[in-house]
Amino acid sequence: MTTSCPPIAWNNDCLEILDQTLLPEEVRFLQLGTIEAAFEAIQKLRVRGAPMIGITAAYGLYLGMRTTLAASAEEFFGILEEQVAYLSGARPTAVNLFWALQAVKSRLTKEAGGRSVSQLKARLLEIATEVHEDDRRRCDAMAEYGQEVIPHGARILTHCNTGALATGGIGTAFGVIHRAHLVGKQVHVYADETRPVLQGARLTMWELANAKIPSQLICDNMAAALMREGNVDLVIVGADRIATDGSAANKIGTYGVAVLAHYHKVPFYVAAPISTFDLAVHHGSEIPIEMRHEDEVRRVFGKTLITLPSAACWNPAFDVTPPELISGIVTERGIIRPPYRENIQAVAGREV
Amino acid sequence: MTTSCPPIAWNNDCLEILDQTLLPEEVRFLQLGTIEAAFEAIQKLRVRGAPMIGITAAYGLYLGMRTTLAASAEEFFGILEEQVAYLSGARPTAVNLFWALQAVKSRLTKEAGGRSVSQLKARLLEIATEVHEDDRRRCDAMAEYGQEVIPHGARILTHCNTGALATGGIGTAFGVIHRAHLVGKQVHVYADETRPVLQGARLTMWELANAKIPSQLICDNMAAALMREGNVDLVIVGADRIATDGSAANKIGTYGVAVLAHYHKVPFYVAAPISTFDLAVHHGSEIPIEMRHEDEVRRVFGKTLITLPSAACWNPAFDVTPPELISGIVTERGIIRPPYRENIQAVAGREV
Repeated sequence: MTTSCPPIAWNNDCLEILDQTLLPEEVRFLQLGTIEAAFEAIQKLRVRGAPMIGITAAYGLYLGMRTTLAASAEEFFGILEEQVAYLSGARPTAVNLFWALQAVKSRLTKEAGGRSVSQLKARLLEIATEVHEDDRRRCDAMAEYGQEVIPHGARILTHCNTGALATGGIGTAFGVIHRAHLVGKQVHVYADETRPVLQGARLTMWELANAKIPSQLICDNMAAALMREGNVDLVIVGADRIATDGSAANKIGTYGVAVLAHYHKVPFYVAAPISTFDLAVHHGSEIPIEMRHEDEVRRVFGKTLITLPSAACWNPAFDVTPPELISGIVTERGIIRPPYRENIQAVAGREV
Repeated sequence: MTTSCPPIAWNNDCLEILDQTLLPEEVRFLQLGTIEAAFEAIQKLRVRGAPMIGITAAYGLYLGMRTTLAASAEEFFGILEEQVAYLSGARPTAVNLFWALQAVKSRLTKEAGGRSVSQLKARLLEIATEVHEDDRRRCDAMAEYGQEVIPHGARILTHCNTGALATGGIGTAFGVIHRAHLVGKQVHVYADETRPVLQGARLTMWELANAKIPSQLICDNMAAALMREGNVDLVIVGADRIATDGSAANKIGTYGVAVLAHYHKVPFYVAAPISTFDLAVHHGSEIPIEMRHEDEVRRVFGKTLITLPSAACWNPAFDVTPPELISGIVTERGIIRPPYRENIQAVAGREV
C-alpha cells in the first residue's frame, strides 16, 4: 500500500502525520490537534528521524499554546516554558528533540518585543512552518548537489532510512537517490534490511515502492557478495553526527558497509545537512555511542524471539565511519571532499 | 533449555535425534524407527548440516532394510536401490545426501560376497555406525589441530552454525572453539545472528549456552564495529565446499566477515573436513551458488513479514571467500596454510 501524500503536513489547523509504526503494512494518517497527541506520536515512534521529530515538536508546541488563556506575554512565555519541558520528555534520550524545542523557544523570545498574546500564537505557527519549510529546502539542495555523484544507470546501495519519513522534505541520502530517479537516471537501489530495527526493510523499501524506484532488499550480510559481483556502483547513506575530522556517526552497520566499499573500490558518500556537523567534536572517537536494549537483537519487532531468552547480546545503535573511507559528504551547501578538516571548517563554519 | 545428550545417537534399536526445528525454545528428542521417519526428519530440517544429514541417511537406510523379507542377496540389493532412491528425495537439492547414500550402498555392495541377507542387514548397521564414528573422529582431530590458532583468553567471532547440531561429533569451527573452552582457555565467543535463516541466533547461541561458553549474540552488521573496538582476536567459520585454490564457499555473510577481518588485521580461519575439498574445482568462481526463495529475506521464520509483501529480494545461500583472506584451513590432517594450491594438493590429495 503506497501513498502520494507527504508523511508530515499542516492541514486544516491540524498536524497530519503518517503513522510510521504501521508501515509497510498499512498507510494511515493521523490528525494531531493537541500537544498531547504530538507527544504521543513522538513517544510511540509514529514519527522518527531527527528532522521529522524536530518539525513535529515545533508544530506540537503551537498546538499546546494556541488555546492558552494567558493574559500577558510574560504569562505566555511561562506556559511556553512548561510546554517545552513537557514535549522534551517524549523521547528523553533524543538530544535533537530538546535542541529543536529550545531553538523555537529562543527564536520566539527574541522576536517577542511588543507582540500581543494572539500575535505570539500566530508567530509560533509561522516559526513551525518555517522550520518545516527550511528542512524541505535543505533536502532539495542536497538532492540537487548529490546528482554530481550519481551516474546514469547507477546501482546504489543504501543503509537504514533517510527519506521523506525521516525529514521534512525529500530526504537526505534517499533524497539524492529519489531525485536521480525523477530526472530519469534509471537507478537501481539495493536496500540493506538494517537489523536490528529493520528500518531498511520496513521504511526504505516502502519509500522505494512509493516512488516506483526499481529496488531489491538484501540482508545486511549480503552487501559484500553483492559488491564482489560488481553490482554496486556507489553507496550513499545518511549521518546522525559528523565530527570536524569528517568522521560520521550513523546507524549501526554503516561502518562495515564503508569498509566493504573501500575494499571493492566502490565510492562511499554521506548525505547530511550542515546541522549534522558538530563543530565541538574534533575526532570520531569522541562521539558517544548509545547502547540499546538487548531485546532489540533477541526479538524481531519486539515480539518474535530468535534466540534463547537468556542470550547476552551487544547492541550499539550507531557506529562511526572514519574520514578515510568517505569519498564525499553531500550537504545543502555543496559536496565536501577531503581534506575534511579544512573543508568542513570552510563550509560548515561559515555563517549564512 | 539445554541438554547433555548428543543431538544424534543410535539407542535401543532406534535413531534418536534432537528436533532442531524446535530450538532454542524446546529440547525434544525423537525416536526414529522407520525409514519414513528418517525421511521426514531430513525433509523437515529436524536434522541439518551436511555430515548430520549423511549420518541420518545411513541409519535411515538401515531402518528401511532391517525388516525386509528379501529371500536373497540379489533381492536385498534390489530393495536397497529403491530405498536409496527414496531417501535421496528427502532434500532433492542436497547433493551431500545423495553422495552419502551412494557411499553406503557401494561400500555394502563391495563387501557383499558370500553374505546372507541377515548378515547384510547387520553389516549395514555397522556401516552406519562407522559413518557416524568416522565423523566424530574427524571433528575431534580438527578440534585438536585447531588449538594452535586459539590463544588463551581469545575473543572469537563465528558465523552460522558448525557445532554438534551440524555434524556427528563436536563440530568443525564450533568444535575448535568448544575444545578451547574445555581445556580452560577462557574464550569469549561472539556469534553473528546469520540472516536470513538465523542459524547463529537459533543454533549457535543454543550450543554455546549448552556448553556454558561465555558468549554474546550480535546482528551481522555489528561485526565491523566490534572489530574496530579491538574486541575480536580471531574469526573461525566452517565451509561447505573448498576449491583447490583455497577459495571457501560458506553461508552467506562469511565473505563479508573475511573482508572486515582482513581490514582490521584479525586472523580468519576456516575449519572443515577433507571431504569438503572438491579437487575437481580449481577456482572459487567455479563454485555454483544456490539462490534461495525471496521469502526467506522478506519474513523471519517464514512468518513475521518485515517488508512489503511485494518487495523484490536477493537471496544467495552462500558466498565464496578467496584464499588471500584466509589465514589457514583447519582439517583433520592438520592446518593447511598458504600457498594453498600446493598445500591442499599435498594434504587433501593423498590417500589415507
